[in-house]
Amino acid sequence: MKTPEDKSAKLWGGRFKEKASSIMERIGESISFDQKLYKEDLEGSRAHAKMLAKMGILNSTELKDILDGLNQVEEEIESGNFKFSSELEDIHMHVESRLTELKGEVGKKLHTARSRNDQVAQDTRLYVRNRIQEILLRLDSLREALYEQASKNIDTIIPGYTHLQVAQPIRASHFLLAYFWMFTRDLEFFEFASKTSNILVLGSGAMAGVNYQNDREFLASELKADSISPNSMDGVSNRDHLLQFLFAAVQTMSHASRFCEDIVLYSSQEFGLVKLPDSLTTGSSIMPQKKNPDIAELIRGKSARVAGNLNHLIGLLKGLPLTYNRDLQEDKLAVFDAVETVLLSLEGLEAMVSEIQFRPERGERSLKEGFATATDLADFLVGEKKVPFRTAHELVGRLVSECVERKENLFTISEEVRKGISPYFTGEEYSKAVSLELSTDKKSSYGGTSKSRQLEQLELAKQSIKSIQRNTK
Amino acid sequence: MKTPEDKSAKLWGGRFKEKASSIMERIGESISFDQKLYKEDLEGSRAHAKMLAKMGILNSTELKDILDGLNQVEEEIESGNFKFSSELEDIHMHVESRLTELKGEVGKKLHTARSRNDQVAQDTRLYVRNRIQEILLRLDSLREALYEQASKNIDTIIPGYTHLQVAQPIRASHFLLAYFWMFTRDLEFFEFASKTSNILVLGSGAMAGVNYQNDREFLASELKADSISPNSMDGVSNRDHLLQFLFAAVQTMSHASRFCEDIVLYSSQEFGLVKLPDSLTTGSSIMPQKKNPDIAELIRGKSARVAGNLNHLIGLLKGLPLTYNRDLQEDKLAVFDAVETVLLSLEGLEAMVSEIQFRPERGERSLKEGFATATDLADFLVGEKKVPFRTAHELVGRLVSECVERKENLFTISEEVRKGISPYFTGEEYSKAVSLELSTDKKSSYGGTSKSRQLEQLELAKQSIKSIQRNTK
Amino acid sequence: MKTPEDKSAKLWGGRFKEKASSIMERIGESISFDQKLYKEDLEGSRAHAKMLAKMGILNSTELKDILDGLNQVEEEIESGNFKFSSELEDIHMHVESRLTELKGEVGKKLHTARSRNDQVAQDTRLYVRNRIQEILLRLDSLREALYEQASKNIDTIIPGYTHLQVAQPIRASHFLLAYFWMFTRDLEFFEFASKTSNILVLGSGAMAGVNYQNDREFLASELKADSISPNSMDGVSNRDHLLQFLFAAVQTMSHASRFCEDIVLYSSQEFGLVKLPDSLTTGSSIMPQKKNPDIAELIRGKSARVAGNLNHLIGLLKGLPLTYNRDLQEDKLAVFDAVETVLLSLEGLEAMVSEIQFRPERGERSLKEGFATATDLADFLVGEKKVPFRTAHELVGRLVSECVERKENLFTISEEVRKGISPYFTGEEYSKAVSLELSTDKKSSYGGTSKSRQLEQLELAKQSIKSIQRNTK
Amino acid sequence: MKTPEDKSAKLWGGRFKEKASSIMERIGESISFDQKLYKEDLEGSRAHAKMLAKMGILNSTELKDILDGLNQVEEEIESGNFKFSSELEDIHMHVESRLTELKGEVGKKLHTARSRNDQVAQDTRLYVRNRIQEILLRLDSLREALYEQASKNIDTIIPGYTHLQVAQPIRASHFLLAYFWMFTRDLEFFEFASKTSNILVLGSGAMAGVNYQNDREFLASELKADSISPNSMDGVSNRDHLLQFLFAAVQTMSHASRFCEDIVLYSSQEFGLVKLPDSLTTGSSIMPQKKNPDIAELIRGKSARVAGNLNHLIGLLKGLPLTYNRDLQEDKLAVFDAVETVLLSLEGLEAMVSEIQFRPERGERSLKEGFATATDLADFLVGEKKVPFRTAHELVGRLVSECVERKENLFTISEEVRKGISPYFTGEEYSKAVSLELSTDKKSSYGGTSKSRQLEQLELAKQSIKSIQRNTK
Repeated sequence: MKTPEDKSAKLWGGRFKEKASSIMERIGESISFDQKLYKEDLEGSRAHAKMLAKMGILNSTELKDILDGLNQVEEEIESGNFKFSSELEDIHMHVESRLTELKGEVGKKLHTARSRNDQVAQDTRLYVRNRIQEILLRLDSLREALYEQASKNIDTIIPGYTHLQVAQPIRASHFLLAYFWMFTRDLEFFEFASKTSNILVLGSGAMAGVNYQNDREFLASELKADSISPNSMDGVSNRDHLLQFLFAAVQTMSHASRFCEDIVLYSSQEFGLVKLPDSLTTGSSIMPQKKNPDIAELIRGKSARVAGNLNHLIGLLKGLPLTYNRDLQEDKLAVFDAVETVLLSLEGLEAMVSEIQFRPERGERSLKEGFATATDLADFLVGEKKVPFRTAHELVGRLVSECVERKENLFTISEEVRKGISPYFTGEEYSKAVSLELSTDKKSSYGGTSKSRQLEQLELAKQSIKSIQRNTK
Repeated sequence: MKTPEDKSAKLWGGRFKEKASSIMERIGESISFDQKLYKEDLEGSRAHAKMLAKMGILNSTELKDILDGLNQVEEEIESGNFKFSSELEDIHMHVESRLTELKGEVGKKLHTARSRNDQVAQDTRLYVRNRIQEILLRLDSLREALYEQASKNIDTIIPGYTHLQVAQPIRASHFLLAYFWMFTRDLEFFEFASKTSNILVLGSGAMAGVNYQNDREFLASELKADSISPNSMDGVSNRDHLLQFLFAAVQTMSHASRFCEDIVLYSSQEFGLVKLPDSLTTGSSIMPQKKNPDIAELIRGKSARVAGNLNHLIGLLKGLPLTYNRDLQEDKLAVFDAVETVLLSLEGLEAMVSEIQFRPERGERSLKEGFATATDLADFLVGEKKVPFRTAHELVGRLVSECVERKENLFTISEEVRKGISPYFTGEEYSKAVSLELSTDKKSSYGGTSKSRQLEQLELAKQSIKSIQRNTK
Repeated sequence: MKTPEDKSAKLWGGRFKEKASSIMERIGESISFDQKLYKEDLEGSRAHAKMLAKMGILNSTELKDILDGLNQVEEEIESGNFKFSSELEDIHMHVESRLTELKGEVGKKLHTARSRNDQVAQDTRLYVRNRIQEILLRLDSLREALYEQASKNIDTIIPGYTHLQVAQPIRASHFLLAYFWMFTRDLEFFEFASKTSNILVLGSGAMAGVNYQNDREFLASELKADSISPNSMDGVSNRDHLLQFLFAAVQTMSHASRFCEDIVLYSSQEFGLVKLPDSLTTGSSIMPQKKNPDIAELIRGKSARVAGNLNHLIGLLKGLPLTYNRDLQEDKLAVFDAVETVLLSLEGLEAMVSEIQFRPERGERSLKEGFATATDLADFLVGEKKVPFRTAHELVGRLVSECVERKENLFTISEEVRKGISPYFTGEEYSKAVSLELSTDKKSSYGGTSKSRQLEQLELAKQSIKSIQRNTK
Repeated sequence: MKTPEDKSAKLWGGRFKEKASSIMERIGESISFDQKLYKEDLEGSRAHAKMLAKMGILNSTELKDILDGLNQVEEEIESGNFKFSSELEDIHMHVESRLTELKGEVGKKLHTARSRNDQVAQDTRLYVRNRIQEILLRLDSLREALYEQASKNIDTIIPGYTHLQVAQPIRASHFLLAYFWMFTRDLEFFEFASKTSNILVLGSGAMAGVNYQNDREFLASELKADSISPNSMDGVSNRDHLLQFLFAAVQTMSHASRFCEDIVLYSSQEFGLVKLPDSLTTGSSIMPQKKNPDIAELIRGKSARVAGNLNHLIGLLKGLPLTYNRDLQEDKLAVFDAVETVLLSLEGLEAMVSEIQFRPERGERSLKEGFATATDLADFLVGEKKVPFRTAHELVGRLVSECVERKENLFTISEEVRKGISPYFTGEEYSKAVSLELSTDKKSSYGGTSKSRQLEQLELAKQSIKSIQRNTK
């Protein structure tokens, strides 16, 4: 029904002999979900009314009536007194219809030089732009939480994993800041998507432009749009900003899913590297150490839902001819669902990050049982004692085998056994060579896990947080 | 929270010092969507109660109390008097909690030898099985509509397309029956998925089986399950029936999207092969021939949503360790959405199929302007007149070029011009050679578009419809 | 180019003034991938030639020439002496062109009453049917390996997990058989897809049927098809069998991804429940206990690729009008890739299953550290000692807390401490109540983890394996 | 095998008693696809070697040997003389192994302070950055072609569509420029993705940083990276740049699919709005007007493949724990396939755009048969003749009905009939009111289809093209 000539539902309806059948009404309605756009629809309508007045199409009384009417509609919706009905299909018709009830024929004049095609396109753009602002605030807040935890855990040594095998000792700050940078990239991506979204398309009409003199510069300024779409056909059929919003959401949830996987693993009985607070877990009445990391599992699962939403939109757009096609009506379902999921998940992530507690004693156990510094010991032989590479590896290999056989590790095996393998495996030198903490400090390259590099990275993170002066309204 | 020991929410809650935080409650609740399972949850609970009585775990008074209580819960929900609250997380806790309010401690005994893990798995299985029955009825009905329209349009000649180019004249019945067989395959797929779904998993406990004597044969018979899951770990973590349900839904919507694309094309001004009724379109107050095929566009778009739902579930399951993980809670979102979409779309398709009108005059125009029987003419030269293949093609090629130059077609070009090219291009023989209807009848191979083959195929379709004696309850 | 009239590439090419441009040739060629269909293309061509001879369209000399020619083509391809060139676009043109080189004009007669549209549809059906047979054999073999390992590990006690938290002791056979039943469902799904695939569509012509008398019953019997497609339009445009093949592949790989996740977890330093052989892992020269479970990671990753292939096909089909459209050419890319991935992954899974070694000592550690039988102890108080439920839970809770404080567990805590909490926490009764093995045997419901139920389930698995008398040719 | 300690394949191999089994080798090899990275692997290795020399780890002779060796490897690969073998798994091992063959032990020193984890991450970043440059050039070129065609077709009037129904007359330039702006957005998106990609991660080591002094600033400058990854764990596990590359590819192919759909429609017999050249179509030997738009269909289909590739990567990343996991090996499959598909498709699009011919006579037919200016006529009554809105609509409605009944249109209906309905429906005023061209000029709002707005928009497009001074090397 979103064609240029549908200036009034009644009008075209008049020609139709049969009433919209029940199935048509049920399949065609969008008010059950697009009522979420009400604020943006009113925002767009106010700007449009002012523009019409500026162009002399509305006089000042008409403008006042319309603005008053729109305010009343807003109040009714927000107070829960607005009546929604699937007969009036969508939010645009609801607003227009109620406005006309309240203010008479002038209500219909609001639709001059506008089509539902450019109207809904603009509403959705405003919606996405506004929601991205909320998401950015959540990302800021999550990044701060990660920074805080990292600051506290610069001296917490835990294993770093590759292939889920204990690889090297790292500082827990390193682990947390890895996620800090991921969510920083998400923030940048959402900012990119926000720019793509914040373009004026109102004034494109049904698809070819409008017959009336209009002032799109004025509309852009009223709606705080960054620029004006130069092509009306593209204006009404373009959904790239929604794609990009969903792309950014998928990237964010991909990071979230990885963090949650790590938390599920680390809070297992076996890894035991972290403890989640009772408020974020469910558990057993008699087994206090058992806490199901439900929140992490739920968010991990939600990442799949957002990917499903992206697929929905990609499929929806595939092979659609220009310009507006009714298929596009349900683009909003994917976006609305993703907005909610991302906001809720970011809040959940922040709660986890803020309240997580590391258990360094379990990190130590894993690192020791995993012989995580055997390589450091070999490096010591090569670097300090000039033992040839192969010999060094053979000696350390023998020591490790000896430990395994005796159910010991590099820290518990007796000096006697050690000396039996190499005279260098003794005293403080040996202790330093296998030390977990010292191992981290050897990784002193930029970006590495040494304490100085971690301090440097924390400073970078702080700068990154500070550099954002987001308008929180 | 779905662990074996969660016999009572209060119990494990007791150990937790902090209240479930607001974000945990909001992210963890499923009652906002899983209340759709209420009927199946009650169905499962009744069967479980009877089994407990059979095993002597409940006495007959207790059983009666529980069954009475469950009936009352059902009434309350169906009359809209049931109170839902996100604190009680899911439908299972709502039912149990209300039952206990109504009947006292006996309500809690219902959860003996049962865990929420096997309970929710069983509920969802019953739900899918029951919804598939509704979908099958819709598919039956759609197939009948296709059969009826095909019967009426056996003599309607329209173009058949390859690459969206006019290829050969076909009977409209042929086109409609192509979709008949597609939806027949969907029906078979849903029946396959129904069997996968209709398996008893109740009695699997949290995942290792239950400590109590139970009687799963009895449960299977009460719930009309086809068989019993042989492995309790698989029982609680298996979601294949949901995957298969969504697969069948995607296949069905893929067919729907193709039908809708054909309808959108055929009802365009340019193709003009079909007319949709006013009740299924929207239009213009002053252009009567213009009818936007909104319903077809909407269903085409919905096909993308169902594919998104499938992706949701595939992603959700990927790499989940055994057995139950909380991620699984949201498997239902994908399924519920697909159920609704498929049911609505099938209803919409049936409305279109029933009310569509073919416009054979436009089919004729396309076929003639498309020289659709030029190949038949060449075949006539080769087959009847023994003209060598290459010569035949050259002669017909020349005739077609002549037509194009003169803005004529094979039917309007004068006999004089024709004779100038070949003496065989004359009289009734020529007319028969280029006849649209006769062209269809030459396609007399099994499955072809000739009238006799179409009659044969209609008979097959009728048999296929009759062979199903679906229990409509 | 796949239209009815394209009996010869040269012919239509003749009318075209310009040569196929380089980009058209590069974008349009499929020989780089569809050469995989050569065997099926020859199989279909042989059947078609015989049918043409039966109908009198070919005489016996012509038939012999064609069959000889096709045999020679096969030899040339298999010996690597066949010349492929992107000019000849696809496998069908390669075979026809070489046949004509070898045997002259009779080669072109083979294409009588056939179009590339039905030819490629049939080839792909045969290909899928044949590859499914290979996949079924791999699934048989994998199921046997699971059965064998389960038989050997009926007495291996390991933790069962929910939420990746230690939940209850289970027998390792239980874990392995869970996967046995998953792969059994995959086998059933592939058999369903095989039936959908094994239908004759040859004889559908370009889309409307063929002008010649043909004998599709004969073709069906030659090609061992189960039935004949009743509608030629559907015959050439239907790709449901490919969808279903990919669905089955996705389900299989979903199971594979879960198994691999379990293996990655269980072979971590921290879980340590299983050991993979050196031949399937990569590792460290000096840390013998460290083995990267690369094969499990790779297969887990491959599950995502197969889901991508399914998405490719779903998207490809969305909104395609009837009948053949050139988009369909690349349906094969998705299928070929999935065939290889599934076959390789099943082989990899079998290698893992066959060579995996459980480390029951680590299972015991997890179970004990996880207080996995605390619930059993409470059940003992309630069941044997008639202690009220709440009291029982409180007593066990106190015992567990005591253990945690003292860094002990239910097995190491002194009888003195135990007695201080409850007089029932003593002697053999206590030992039995917390016994890991006895705990499994209490789960004696059908499908449960008790030894007798595991033996019963092994027997069921054996019957399931035996019931298949697959023709391995 | 991509762990820190795998300094040499032989080394860790030495501990393994069994040879890598055949299945492990076949499932684990990536050389069959990652040989595409050879140039970037060499690029990265040269930079690393120079850095090692700068840090004093290599002396100048060693550096020269390594650089010479790498050059020789490059020559061998490019001349086709390089031996690939699946035993040497991947491109990195191939290069290192050949280098060592050529130059002896110094070859192994190249791997100092580097791990395969950071090496492959850097190679892939360089690869994506370099391929994006090629894609940007293709996009430039496509945009120029669109601009050229639009310039030529500013006076070509064709229908604009909504719901695939004729909506309003537009200038063909308007249609073409709609796509110009879409591909401009793709260009911007690829530039964003390029920045995300062009970051230095080399020097991250296996995941915790490297033990050696390194100079990452120097590496960044050698590799022309924009910045340096601040976190080594993130450095080796981050795949956002690949996600973003695929996102941009999906958006681009979404636009491509819409353009192709339009071309398939417009080149149909029924629409007939455009003619593709013979070089880009396939056709019939005897039906000259029939041209299958294969290239458009193929590209439309390919859009689904790229979406499949994106899904592959999204699924691959979901729930992966930090840091490197072997699953990541196959991220390249999705990217390589998308690179090729996008490049080929853009080339195909450009060929279509450049060689397409509009058929304005068919545009006129559609617009007239579609009564596309009936609304303009009503607007004329309201605007010029001050006829009340409803009356105007009624009068035009009656005129259209009259036309439909008489099989006429607004241009062919006699003045007599017109006058019978309204005295205003006469003379030049009437002709102007229904004129197709004048209708376009009434859409004079910014972005609209009027001639002046089209000229303005062409100028904008020209500026946009000029503003890019891309370095074509």
